[in-house]
Amino acid sequence: MARSVIYILNGPNLNLLGVREPEVYGHATLESIEEMCKIRAESLGQEIVFRQTNTEGTLIDWVHEANTKARALVLNAAGYSHTSVALHDALKAISIPKIELHISNIHARETFRHKSMVSPVVTGLICGFGTDGYVMALDAAARLIEKSPNKK
Amino acid sequence: MARSVIYILNGPNLNLLGVREPEVYGHATLESIEEMCKIRAESLGQEIVFRQTNTEGTLIDWVHEANTKARALVLNAAGYSHTSVALHDALKAISIPKIELHISNIHARETFRHKSMVSPVVTGLICGFGTDGYVMALDAAARLIEKSPNKK
Amino acid sequence: MARSVIYILNGPNLNLLGVREPEVYGHATLESIEEMCKIRAESLGQEIVFRQTNTEGTLIDWVHEANTKARALVLNAAGYSHTSVALHDALKAISIPKIELHISNIHARETFRHKSMVSPVVTGLICGFGTDGYVMALDAAARLIEKSPNKK
Amino acid sequence: MARSVIYILNGPNLNLLGVREPEVYGHATLESIEEMCKIRAESLGQEIVFRQTNTEGTLIDWVHEANTKARALVLNAAGYSHTSVALHDALKAISIPKIELHISNIHARETFRHKSMVSPVVTGLICGFGTDGYVMALDAAARLIEKSPNKK
Amino acid sequence: MARSVIYILNGPNLNLLGVREPEVYGHATLESIEEMCKIRAESLGQEIVFRQTNTEGTLIDWVHEANTKARALVLNAAGYSHTSVALHDALKAISIPKIELHISNIHARETFRHKSMVSPVVTGLICGFGTDGYVMALDAAARLIEKSPNKK
Amino acid sequence: MARSVIYILNGPNLNLLGVREPEVYGHATLESIEEMCKIRAESLGQEIVFRQTNTEGTLIDWVHEANTKARALVLNAAGYSHTSVALHDALKAISIPKIELHISNIHARETFRHKSMVSPVVTGLICGFGTDGYVMALDAAARLIEKSPNKK
Amino acid sequence: MARSVIYILNGPNLNLLGVREPEVYGHATLESIEEMCKIRAESLGQEIVFRQTNTEGTLIDWVHEANTKARALVLNAAGYSHTSVALHDALKAISIPKIELHISNIHARETFRHKSMVSPVVTGLICGFGTDGYVMALDAAARLIEKSPNKK
Amino acid sequence: MARSVIYILNGPNLNLLGVREPEVYGHATLESIEEMCKIRAESLGQEIVFRQTNTEGTLIDWVHEANTKARALVLNAAGYSHTSVALHDALKAISIPKIELHISNIHARETFRHKSMVSPVVTGLICGFGTDGYVMALDAAARLIEKSPNKK
Amino acid sequence: MARSVIYILNGPNLNLLGVREPEVYGHATLESIEEMCKIRAESLGQEIVFRQTNTEGTLIDWVHEANTKARALVLNAAGYSHTSVALHDALKAISIPKIELHISNIHARETFRHKSMVSPVVTGLICGFGTDGYVMALDAAARLIEKSPNKK
Amino acid sequence: MARSVIYILNGPNLNLLGVREPEVYGHATLESIEEMCKIRAESLGQEIVFRQTNTEGTLIDWVHEANTKARALVLNAAGYSHTSVALHDALKAISIPKIELHISNIHARETFRHKSMVSPVVTGLICGFGTDGYVMALDAAARLIEKSPNKK
Amino acid sequence: MARSVIYILNGPNLNLLGVREPEVYGHATLESIEEMCKIRAESLGQEIVFRQTNTEGTLIDWVHEANTKARALVLNAAGYSHTSVALHDALKAISIPKIELHISNIHARETFRHKSMVSPVVTGLICGFGTDGYVMALDAAARLIEKSPNKK
Amino acid sequence: MARSVIYILNGPNLNLLGVREPEVYGHATLESIEEMCKIRAESLGQEIVFRQTNTEGTLIDWVHEANTKARALVLNAAGYSHTSVALHDALKAISIPKIELHISNIHARETFRHKSMVSPVVTGLICGFGTDGYVMALDAAARLIEKSPNKK
Repeated sequence: MARSVIYILNGPNLNLLGVREPEVYGHATLESIEEMCKIRAESLGQEIVFRQTNTEGTLIDWVHEANTKARALVLNAAGYSHTSVALHDALKAISIPKIELHISNIHARETFRHKSMVSPVVTGLICGFGTDGYVMALDAAARLIEKSPNKK
Repeated sequence: MARSVIYILNGPNLNLLGVREPEVYGHATLESIEEMCKIRAESLGQEIVFRQTNTEGTLIDWVHEANTKARALVLNAAGYSHTSVALHDALKAISIPKIELHISNIHARETFRHKSMVSPVVTGLICGFGTDGYVMALDAAARLIEKSPNKK
Repeated sequence: MARSVIYILNGPNLNLLGVREPEVYGHATLESIEEMCKIRAESLGQEIVFRQTNTEGTLIDWVHEANTKARALVLNAAGYSHTSVALHDALKAISIPKIELHISNIHARETFRHKSMVSPVVTGLICGFGTDGYVMALDAAARLIEKSPNKK
Repeated sequence: MARSVIYILNGPNLNLLGVREPEVYGHATLESIEEMCKIRAESLGQEIVFRQTNTEGTLIDWVHEANTKARALVLNAAGYSHTSVALHDALKAISIPKIELHISNIHARETFRHKSMVSPVVTGLICGFGTDGYVMALDAAARLIEKSPNKK
Repeated sequence: MARSVIYILNGPNLNLLGVREPEVYGHATLESIEEMCKIRAESLGQEIVFRQTNTEGTLIDWVHEANTKARALVLNAAGYSHTSVALHDALKAISIPKIELHISNIHARETFRHKSMVSPVVTGLICGFGTDGYVMALDAAARLIEKSPNKK
Repeated sequence: MARSVIYILNGPNLNLLGVREPEVYGHATLESIEEMCKIRAESLGQEIVFRQTNTEGTLIDWVHEANTKARALVLNAAGYSHTSVALHDALKAISIPKIELHISNIHARETFRHKSMVSPVVTGLICGFGTDGYVMALDAAARLIEKSPNKK
Repeated sequence: MARSVIYILNGPNLNLLGVREPEVYGHATLESIEEMCKIRAESLGQEIVFRQTNTEGTLIDWVHEANTKARALVLNAAGYSHTSVALHDALKAISIPKIELHISNIHARETFRHKSMVSPVVTGLICGFGTDGYVMALDAAARLIEKSPNKK
Repeated sequence: MARSVIYILNGPNLNLLGVREPEVYGHATLESIEEMCKIRAESLGQEIVFRQTNTEGTLIDWVHEANTKARALVLNAAGYSHTSVALHDALKAISIPKIELHISNIHARETFRHKSMVSPVVTGLICGFGTDGYVMALDAAARLIEKSPNKK
Repeated sequence: MARSVIYILNGPNLNLLGVREPEVYGHATLESIEEMCKIRAESLGQEIVFRQTNTEGTLIDWVHEANTKARALVLNAAGYSHTSVALHDALKAISIPKIELHISNIHARETFRHKSMVSPVVTGLICGFGTDGYVMALDAAARLIEKSPNKK
Repeated sequence: MARSVIYILNGPNLNLLGVREPEVYGHATLESIEEMCKIRAESLGQEIVFRQTNTEGTLIDWVHEANTKARALVLNAAGYSHTSVALHDALKAISIPKIELHISNIHARETFRHKSMVSPVVTGLICGFGTDGYVMALDAAARLIEKSPNKK
Repeated sequence: MARSVIYILNGPNLNLLGVREPEVYGHATLESIEEMCKIRAESLGQEIVFRQTNTEGTLIDWVHEANTKARALVLNAAGYSHTSVALHDALKAISIPKIELHISNIHARETFRHKSMVSPVVTGLICGFGTDGYVMALDAAARLIEKSPNKK
Repeated sequence: MARSVIYILNGPNLNLLGVREPEVYGHATLESIEEMCKIRAESLGQEIVFRQTNTEGTLIDWVHEANTKARALVLNAAGYSHTSVALHDALKAISIPKIELHISNIHARETFRHKSMVSPVVTGLICGFGTDGYVMALDAAARLIEKSPNKK
C-alpha cells in the first residue's frame, strides 16, 4: 500500500514544550516529539506533516489544507480548544478522521479547561497520557485510515 | 452621484462555501457570491471590496480599513461572531453603517451560535436567507449610505 | 403570474408607532408603514394583508389564517417574540416562508430582548433597519415565494 | 347517579391537530378527539364540555367557569403550559380535580418544554400517550369525581 | 380644580378576589374594592375607571387608552406582572404616572413571583398591604397628578 | 389472545409505602397495590411481574430482563428517577413500551424532584394520581401492547 | 386613644440625602424628611423615633429595640437591604408591623438592587415615590397599628 | 518479565453491547471485546481480568480489588461516569495507573454526558474510537505499567 | 435503664480508611474506629451495630432496618451524601434521631462536596473533627435518645 | 494542667434567643446557655469567655482577640455566616482550633442559609442539635486543645 | 502649592498584616506601611490620614468624611470589597478621586474574591503589587489631585 | 547598572487610540503614549520595546519573545483579555514580572469586560487611570525588576 499522509497540528504555546510548566507538560520539546512521531509513522507506513502555530486563523488554514492533502488529522489545539467556534466549524467542515489530543489531563485542571469546543466534532479524543498521546493518536489515525474508504 | 465603496468581509471557513455542509450553507461558492455581489453593486451604482480570511486579527485590520476607505460595511464574521470581544470593539470604533450577515439561521442551530458579540454594535442584521442575504445586505447598505451624511 | 398574498402581522404596542419612544422606533406611524408596504407590494406584483393586535391569541389565529390564505408571512411579534412558546408552535406548524422582523436592533437593548422564541422557527430574520425593514422583508418574501413550489 | 360535567379545555394550536407536525402529534383531528371523548364520557356516565382557544385569557375565563359548572377539569394548555403564571393562578384558585394533559412526551423535546407552570397546581398529569391520553384523563377524572365529596 | 381621571386596571384572576386563597388575598371582593376606591377618589376630588380582564392583550389596550383618557394609572397586573414583555413595553410607551400594585407580598411567596417585568417601568410600587394598597395607590396617584404638569 | 406479561418495577423506599409520609403517598402498602394490579391485569387479560428493590443496579438488571420477558414496562423509579443516567441508558436500550409512574405529583414538591432522567426515554408518564396511577398505567400498557407489533 | 410610637430607621448613606445623586434621590435632606414625618405623625396622632446609621449591627440593635418600644417600624435599609441575612433575621424575629421603604425605584436600577433580603419578612413595601414614600409609610403604619391588637 | 494483571471494568448497560443503539455503540458484543482484549494482552505480555456490572457499589468493590491485584485499571463506567462521587473517591483512593474509556464520543451527545466525575482522577482518557478504544487502552496501560515503579 | 441500640452506618470507600488519602482522613482504620465506638457506647450504656458498604441500595436497606431495630442512627454516607435522592427519601421516611457525620471538613474541599442531600433530613450534623466525630456522634445520639419518647 | 480559655462568640440576633422563633431555636435564653457552658467548662477544666454582638466588625475584633487570649474558639456567627468574606478572612488568619456552631439545622431551612462562608476555614462544624450544640462544641474544643501543641 | 490631604482607609483584618498569611500578604505590618506612606506623601507635598477598622459602618463613615476633608481617597476595603453594596453607594456618593487597592492579586485567589463591588465606582484600581501598591496609589492620587479642579 | 528592556505590548484596536470612543479612552494616540513611555523609561534607566497588533497569535509570539529578551512585560491585551485562554497560557509559561494594564475602568463597563483571563497569571494589574496607567506600569515594572534576581 502506498503511504498516506497524517497531519499533526499543534496550537498556541506548544512551541514552549519542555520549558513551560514541565510538571504539567513534561520535559520533551516539540522537536523531540516530532522526531518520535516520524519514527512511529515510518513503522506504520505513514508519512507525517508536523506543524505548530500560535495563530487561530493559521490553524484553521491548516485544517482546511489537511482535508485535501491528508488522510487523517491529529490536533492538539491547546488554548484554542476551549473557546474557538471557528475551529469547531473548520473541523466540522472536513471529512477525514480527526483526533483531538491533549498532553495533560484537562479535566484535572482549571474549570475553563473542562469544556472543549473541539470535542463534539472529532472522531475521538485522547488526553492525559503525556507526550505518549502523540504515539497513541498516530496508531489510532492509522487504524481509522485503514477503515475509511480510499480517498487520496 | 459618484460611486461609493462597500466592504464585504467574510470570516473563518467561508472559503469552504459550497463544499462545507451544503445542506446548511447551500451550493454556491464564495467566488460565485462575489460575482453576484459585483453585479448587484453595479446596478446600485456602488463598488465593492470583497474579502475572506480565517484570522480574527486580519478581520479587525480590514474593519479599521473599511472605516477610512468605505461608506458601508457588510460583515459575515462566521465563527468569530459568537466569541470575539475584539471584533465587537473594532465595530464599535468605526462610524460607517455596519450590517451583520449570516447565511444560515443561527437561532435554529446549536445554542453557542445564538449569541453574537457583533449584533449589539451593528446598524442592522440579516440572517437565514441563504446567499440571497448578500444581495439584501447590499441593498440595505446602499439605502443607509443614501441616508447618512456625505463622508468619503 | 397571478398576484399572491403576503401577510404582514404586527404584535403588541406597534399601534403606538410614531408616538412611543421615537428615538428607538422612529417617527413613522403604522398607517404610513402600511401605505409604504402597499406601494412596494404593488411594484413586486404582490398583494398584502396588514394587521396589528395586542392579543397573543389573535396573533396566533392570524398566523394560522396566513397558512391557508397567503404565500408568505412577515411577522413583527414585538414583545411576544421574547416569551411566547405558543407563537413558536404556531409558526412551526405552518409551511409558508416566514420572516421575523424587528424595527430596532433588539441586541443593542435590554438582555430580555436578546432571545427570541420566534427566531428558531422562521426562514430568516431582519432587524435594526428601522421601518425600512418592512420593505426589505417584502422583497425577501417575494423572492422566497418565487423559489417555493406553487401553492395557492 | 346523575351525570356530572367534565370540562376538557385545549390551548393554542391544538385546532391544527392532524395537520401540524403529525410525526409528533399524530393524525387525529381535534374534532375526532372530541367525538372519541363524548363516547367515552357517555360510557362513564358523564357529560363533557370540549373547547379550544388560542387566547390565554379565554383559557383562564373557561377555567373559572369550570369551577362553577363542572366537577372536574382536563387541561391541555399546550404552549401556555410552559410560561403562564396567570394560568397557574387560575388553576390554584379552583377547587375541583384538575388533570394536566399533553399528547406528546414534552420531556423528550426541546428544553423549554420540560418545565410546566401548570404541573405544580394540578391533581395529576398524563403525557406522551398520544390522543389516547384524552381517554385516560377522562377515566381518571371520573374516578376523582367519585372520590371527591358531592358538589354540583 | 376640575376632576381628573385615574385608571385602576386589574389583571388575571382578580375577578375571583374574596373566593381565591382568602388567606393570601383577603375576603374583600373586587366589587367592594371598586366601591372603596370610588369613595376615596371622591374625597380626593378624582374620578376613577375601574376594570378587570383575564386577557393580556386587553390589559395592554387599556393601558394605551389610559394614556389618552387618564392622568394616572394604577395597575395590578397579577400573573402577567412576572412574564409580560408586552405589558412592560406598553407601560414604557405611556407618559402618565404609573403605580404597580400587589395585594399580597409577592416577595414572601414562590420564587417566580419575585421578579416583575412591570416594576422597572413604573413610577412607584406598593405591595403587601392587602386591599388597603388600592387606597394607598389612589392617594399616591393624586399626589403625583398634582406634581405633574397639567395635561388632560 | 394469549396473555402477555407486563413488568411493574418499583424503586427505592417504595417498600415503606403506607408507613412513609402517608400524607404524601397514601395508606396503601406495596402488597395491597400488587394485589390490586393483579386483579386489574387479570381483567385486561394480562399477567404481571411485580417487584421492588432499593438498589439502582438491580433495577437496571430487571429493566434488561423486562425487554426479553415482557411486552411492556411500568416503572416507578422513585428517588433514582431524578439522578440516574444509568437507568436512562437502560430504558433507552430496550424496545418495549415503557411507562413512568409517580404516586405523588413530583412537580408540587422540592425542586430536585422536578427533573426526571427517566422521562425523556419513556413512552408516556403518569403522575400525581396516588396509587390509582398503577391501574392507569396497566390500562395504558395494555393499550400500547395492542398497538405494537406482536413480539413475544 | 393614647399616642403610639412608630420607629423610622434609615440605613447607610442616607445621611447624605440631598447631596448624593440628587437626580436619583431628590434634593430633600434627611433632616427635612424627619421634620415632614413629625408633622404627619402629629396629624395621625402618633409619635416617631427617627434615626440613621451606617452600621449594620446598629440597625439590628434598633430593630430589636423597636419591637419593645414601638407599635410599628418603617425601615429604609438602603444598601443593606440587598445583602443582609442578619437584618432579615432581626425583622423575622419581631412581631410589630414592618414596612420596607425605598426612595428610588430599585427595580429601575442596577441588577444587584433588584433583590431585597428584607422584602420576604416585612408586612408591605413601598418604593419609587421619592421622599413622599415616608408619608405613605407613616399612613400605612398608622392603619396597620389600628388593625393590630393593642400591645404597648 | 513476569506477566502483570490489568483490570478492565465495565459499568451499567454494557452487557447490552451489540444490541443497544448499534448506531452509537457498534455491533460488537461485550464477549467479543473481551476476546479481543485477551489476544491483545497476550501479545503485550499481560493478563486481563474483564468484568461487567450494573451496580455502582460492585464497581467500587472491584476498583478497590484492582488496587491490590492489578498493576493498571481500564474503566468504562458508562452512565455512572457522569454522576458518581463515590466512584470518583474510589479512583482517587487507589494508586495504580487508571484509564477512563468511552466507546462513543460523549461530547457529541446529550449535555449531561459532557461532564465526567471520573475524568479528574484518572491518568488519561480515551473516547470516541468505538471498541478499538479497548485496544488503545490496553496499549496505554502496558506503557504506563512499564514506566511505573515495580509494585505487584 | 435497658440498653438501646445505635446504628452506625458507613458508605462507600470508608473500608479504605487509614489507607486512602491519610492527609485528609487520618491513619485510623475502620476496624479501630468500630473498636473505639464500642468502648464509648459501653460507657454510655448503649449497644452499637457498625457496618460499611459500597452499595447505595444496601445503605438504604440498613437505614430502613435501623428504624425498626435501633433508637438512633449515625450515618457517614461518604460519596452518596452529595448525590443520593434515594438516601434522602430513606432518611425522611424514618422517625428515629439521625446524625450525619463526615470525617473531613467537606466545605474545605471540592465544590461538589459542599452540598449534601442528606443534611436537610437529619437531626444534626457533625463534620471536620476527624475520627473523633464518631465519638461526638455517639454522645449526641445518646442525648437524643434520652430526650425522645421511649420506643423500642 | 492549668486552665485554658475558650472563646464562645455569638453573632446577630442571638440576644433574642428564647423569644425569636422558639419552634426553630428553642426556649433557652442566651443567659441560660452561658450558664450551662460555664458549668461544662468547669467540669472540663477550662474557662470560657462568652459574648454576643450584632455588629460584624465587633465579631471580627473578638476573633482576633481570641487568637491571642484563648486556646480555642467556638463561633455561632448566625446571619453573618452566610455572607461575610471579612469573617472568613479573620478566621483564616488565626491559628487556634475553630468550631462553627449552629443551633438549628441550616440545611433544612431557606436556600440562602445552606452556604456558609465560615465553614471552609474552621476545624469542624456542628449544627442542628439545638442548644446542646454548645456543650458538644465545648467538649470538642477541649479535645482539640489537648491535641494541639501548648501555646498560651 | 499648599498641601492637600489624602485619606488611606484600610478594611477588615488588615490590622493583622505581617502576621496573617505572610505568603499572601508579605511581612510588612500596617504600621510600617503607614510610615512608608507618610514619607512618600511628604515627598509628593501631600499629607495623609491613615486608618484601619474592622467595621463596615465605620469604613462608610470615613469615606463620607474623606469627601469633606480630603482631596483623594485610597481604599483597601479587603473582605468588604466583595460584598458591600453599602460601601459601593458611599463611594458613588462622593466626588473626589477614589483608588481601590489590593495587596494580593485577588484574581489569582478564590472565586469569591474575583468580583469587587467597589471597582465599578472608583477612578482606578491597583492590585497584586504587594505593599508597594500603597506607594503606587499615593503617586496616582497626587497625579489625580493635580488634574482635578481645586476644591479644598 | 546596565539598562534592561521592558516590553510594552498592546492588543486589538489600540491602534485607533485617540480616535475610538475618546470619552472612554481619551485623546492621546498610541504614538504619543509610546513617546511618553520612552521618556519615562529613560528617566528610570530602562529601555522599552513598544508594539501593537490586532492578531491574538502575534501577541502570543511577542509574549514568548519578551521572556527571552526583556526583564519585564506590560500588557494591554484589550479585547483579548476577556476571552483568550491561549494568552493566559502564554503568560503562565513565562517567568519575568508581568503587568496587566487597562486604560479605562473595565469594571464600570459592560459585564463581559469584568472578567479577565489575563488577571490570574500576572504579577499585578492597573486599570482605570487613563493613559497615565502606562507610566504607572513602567514605574512598577522598574521596581519589580529591581527586586527580581538578575537574569538578562
